[in-house]
Amino acid sequence: MLTFVGLGLYDERSVTVAGREAIRSADRVVAEFYTSRLVGATVADVEDAHGVDVEVRDREGVERDPDFLDDAAETDVVFLTAGDPMTSTTHVDLRLRAHERGIETRIVNGVTAATAAVGLTGLQNYRFGKATTLPFADAHGGEGVPDSVVETVDDNREHGLHTLVYLDIKVDAGQYGRTDRGSPDGTAAREEEFMTADHAAGLLADVHPDALGIVVARAGAPDAEVVADRISALADGDFGDPLHLLVLPGELHPLEAEALAAFGDAPAELLPE
Amino acid sequence: MLTFVGLGLYDERSVTVAGREAIRSADRVVAEFYTSRLVGATVADVEDAHGVDVEVRDREGVERDPDFLDDAAETDVVFLTAGDPMTSTTHVDLRLRAHERGIETRIVNGVTAATAAVGLTGLQNYRFGKATTLPFADAHGGEGVPDSVVETVDDNREHGLHTLVYLDIKVDAGQYGRTDRGSPDGTAAREEEFMTADHAAGLLADVHPDALGIVVARAGAPDAEVVADRISALADGDFGDPLHLLVLPGELHPLEAEALAAFGDAPAELLPE
Repeated sequence: MLTFVGLGLYDERSVTVAGREAIRSADRVVAEFYTSRLVGATVADVEDAHGVDVEVRDREGVERDPDFLDDAAETDVVFLTAGDPMTSTTHVDLRLRAHERGIETRIVNGVTAATAAVGLTGLQNYRFGKATTLPFADAHGGEGVPDSVVETVDDNREHGLHTLVYLDIKVDAGQYGRTDRGSPDGTAAREEEFMTADHAAGLLADVHPDALGIVVARAGAPDAEVVADRISALADGDFGDPLHLLVLPGELHPLEAEALAAFGDAPAELLPE
Repeated sequence: MLTFVGLGLYDERSVTVAGREAIRSADRVVAEFYTSRLVGATVADVEDAHGVDVEVRDREGVERDPDFLDDAAETDVVFLTAGDPMTSTTHVDLRLRAHERGIETRIVNGVTAATAAVGLTGLQNYRFGKATTLPFADAHGGEGVPDSVVETVDDNREHGLHTLVYLDIKVDAGQYGRTDRGSPDGTAAREEEFMTADHAAGLLADVHPDALGIVVARAGAPDAEVVADRISALADGDFGDPLHLLVLPGELHPLEAEALAAFGDAPAELLPE
């Protein structure tokens, strides 16, 4: 059996009780932290919390050489990821490979950044359209904001819908928002580059400088923060440690506007009457 | 302090470890189960699992007379809901009321049905458009499927996007899919009516009979089930105990098609080559 367990958003206590039981009773625990990672815990913290050894795999070790599938055919293997385990396409692929080999699979879901961002902002879940990801300029070979991102935001807006904008993460790079926390496996000094919300707002300010934007910093963490302001103003902000997300709202329901004022200090002139 | 804790999707073990700690250390624990409920646990199960007393409130006790806010001004009160605590607008309103009174609030997110449905089907998170809810015919005073639902589905499809369709829940009624489990508070025989996926597919078959539909039954439960078939065929199915959801897919990526065949037994003729 291969059980995919989502660790949730923040630290070793963000997993569900059912997930924790699956980890503790597993014969072998494998994890990847290249699609996302816990910002409030190291791998050692996860190991200590559950009393298990965690084998961290890189992309190649999951996508090309998932040797742990051999064990999953005979014993209970748990595969850990931050957030929810099925948010990344690569894990759907892994589940399909296991299935092809006749290995039973199970999913223990985790809390996602999207869920937390909706909750923290007070925006309504069903008023969100398609989500998008804002890449670093050099990752898409162009400058500024890719057309596909602008189209998604504008298309959602035309329908009155909000857009959740995930911000790019680069591994083994180093420029904006680099962390000095060291690697999640506690051994190598892997460098990670998280796009910060002020950087993202700077890019988006070329497109919609006067629109309302909402920064969600450290969704799921005890020091999570929501800041709602003009996009051009957000570009000058500093929102602290990663991860950051942006929400570009469509039409605001009165209760949503009230929540943005109360929990995100949105300036009154940017909200509907 | 008022801490909103999401219990997650299925039973008393679906809460996060952080949520469990909040419950255990609270001075008072209040819950509502009228917006959603745990299908795999009674309130007594939740009380036993955490060693606390849980006061269950009905809609009026939350929206009109939330007396527990008095205590939250002085002590630690936890407010429990199934799924994620901020998915329902009414809880955003409660958080705003607390905020107005100067009460600090905190959110411990839970796993949502949307997250679980995405994971179970193998569909990709960022390929979903706006979600919608299919109401019982007598709840919207018309027959069949409301125009707003059809518009959402068709509009998403035009953009190649999938639609998550939540199915109506009625409390204190009784016709389709009534459960005999008794009330979640274990005392009164409250009657609940969950729209089943076959009933929903029957309604939708008048609009798109030959389109591919995906039933997700008991998302988050150990016996969760995914069935992908023509909508007219799903109308004749039986998908067991609630809760059920439907997904109406837009354009399918090859990996999504493969997942629907593997995990939902989708007929090959309904999938792209």
